[in-house]
Amino acid sequence: MRYLQKASGKEELYNREKLLRSLVLSGLDERSAADIAEEVEKIRTTREIYEAVRQILLRKNPEVAARYSLKDAIMRLGPTGFPFEEYMAELLRRNGHDVLTHQFIRGRCTTHEIDLLIDNEIIGECKYHNERGIYTGLKEAMYTYMRFIDIRQVRELKGVILVTNTKFSDQAIEFSGCYGLNLLGWKYPPGEGLEVKIERSRMYPITVLSGLIPEDEIAELVKFGVVSTRDLIEKEVKVGDKALEVAKVLYETELNEHS
Amino acid sequence: MRYLQKASGKEELYNREKLLRSLVLSGLDERSAADIAEEVEKIRTTREIYEAVRQILLRKNPEVAARYSLKDAIMRLGPTGFPFEEYMAELLRRNGHDVLTHQFIRGRCTTHEIDLLIDNEIIGECKYHNERGIYTGLKEAMYTYMRFIDIRQVRELKGVILVTNTKFSDQAIEFSGCYGLNLLGWKYPPGEGLEVKIERSRMYPITVLSGLIPEDEIAELVKFGVVSTRDLIEKEVKVGDKALEVAKVLYETELNEHS
Repeated sequence: MRYLQKASGKEELYNREKLLRSLVLSGLDERSAADIAEEVEKIRTTREIYEAVRQILLRKNPEVAARYSLKDAIMRLGPTGFPFEEYMAELLRRNGHDVLTHQFIRGRCTTHEIDLLIDNEIIGECKYHNERGIYTGLKEAMYTYMRFIDIRQVRELKGVILVTNTKFSDQAIEFSGCYGLNLLGWKYPPGEGLEVKIERSRMYPITVLSGLIPEDEIAELVKFGVVSTRDLIEKEVKVGDKALEVAKVLYETELNEHS
Repeated sequence: MRYLQKASGKEELYNREKLLRSLVLSGLDERSAADIAEEVEKIRTTREIYEAVRQILLRKNPEVAARYSLKDAIMRLGPTGFPFEEYMAELLRRNGHDVLTHQFIRGRCTTHEIDLLIDNEIIGECKYHNERGIYTGLKEAMYTYMRFIDIRQVRELKGVILVTNTKFSDQAIEFSGCYGLNLLGWKYPPGEGLEVKIERSRMYPITVLSGLIPEDEIAELVKFGVVSTRDLIEKEVKVGDKALEVAKVLYETELNEHS
């Protein structure tokens, strides 16, 4: 029986199977997963385990590392929603859209600050949470749709989308499906969620390289719009050799889709 | 030059004029205000000053004390919104309305939890903030109105109101005025705000008696639906003599409206 200390300070029974499962789900073979488990089993907190696993993966299987830490990496994009909006705009641009951020658009009854204006005809609201375990819910769906109603009365719009880095509540999904509000979030829509779109576009947040690039340098890069590992390559940003090498692997790897 | 330590730990220049002004605005005469200022001028933090002023007033001018500490007393009703909703329901009942709290009502596209259902034809959303300096804004106004739209498609409704213990942002006011969403908050509508309705109904939150009733006893009373000083009298609740005496004064005092 081995206990780990969680971020909350509580203790949790160490669960080797759980670690192995999350590694295999991230695309690692069982043998390598077992090796990693062995390497990290001297560590005391869940956070330390997670970080150690991530560092080993970054050296050995960068694309697994990126997938394994994706959710966490998005959280670390910023304490505020700003980098997430820029990141989402960039992701949409890579998928062929024209995207403007932070546009002020007059509706019938007030002026709205629109996070994303897509192809000049779709408005997008970004809801960013930098804590785990939070759902984006009915209220966010309702105010996003109300914005759409208000603007549509004075200007042509083709659609509206609510984007988040978390999951959606069942109520938000029910409401949105009924009114035709599009949703994009963690594992939603099923099989076409944010995590899938990120992998397909090889747009891993630059924060997946945390540990290979100093934190203050990452913060600086994000500030100047270098938000993904793909940006690092295409904009030929000078970072350390190891970071660049991993970014290249992530850029060039053939997609190895996992179920 | 005298500095006070604020709640934030920062220092603020002590401003005797500011204290006198807030006392006079609460309905105290200038002479008594000056006496109080003198009594409290040995104290070190703004919070201690405020508490000392409140305690002196409770002994000498309970109705001024209640008014002086009203905003703070509402904040202290609870860390969650629950007691505020019960308090608002009670306030509306005292004004002749039938009010149900926490009703689940089916709209066209989802089921809504309605904080207040007034006379079976008006829905009310309560937005409670337990920190100072926060505005209730456009997003709250938009989701409240969207709820109304969704329900109105399947059930007759006469109106919708958003109630808060804070101020409203200019955008919330602009949006709401245009769509006919009613607002009730701190000093809004002007001259008819929450603070005025509370005074007129002599429905001071029980937390204005903080210091005269032990905190855990107040928490217990709130839990059992005794949310105002008026409840204390009408439900003949047994609390200490001093608290009861003040509650009686607040119950019986002729309204002495201040500008």
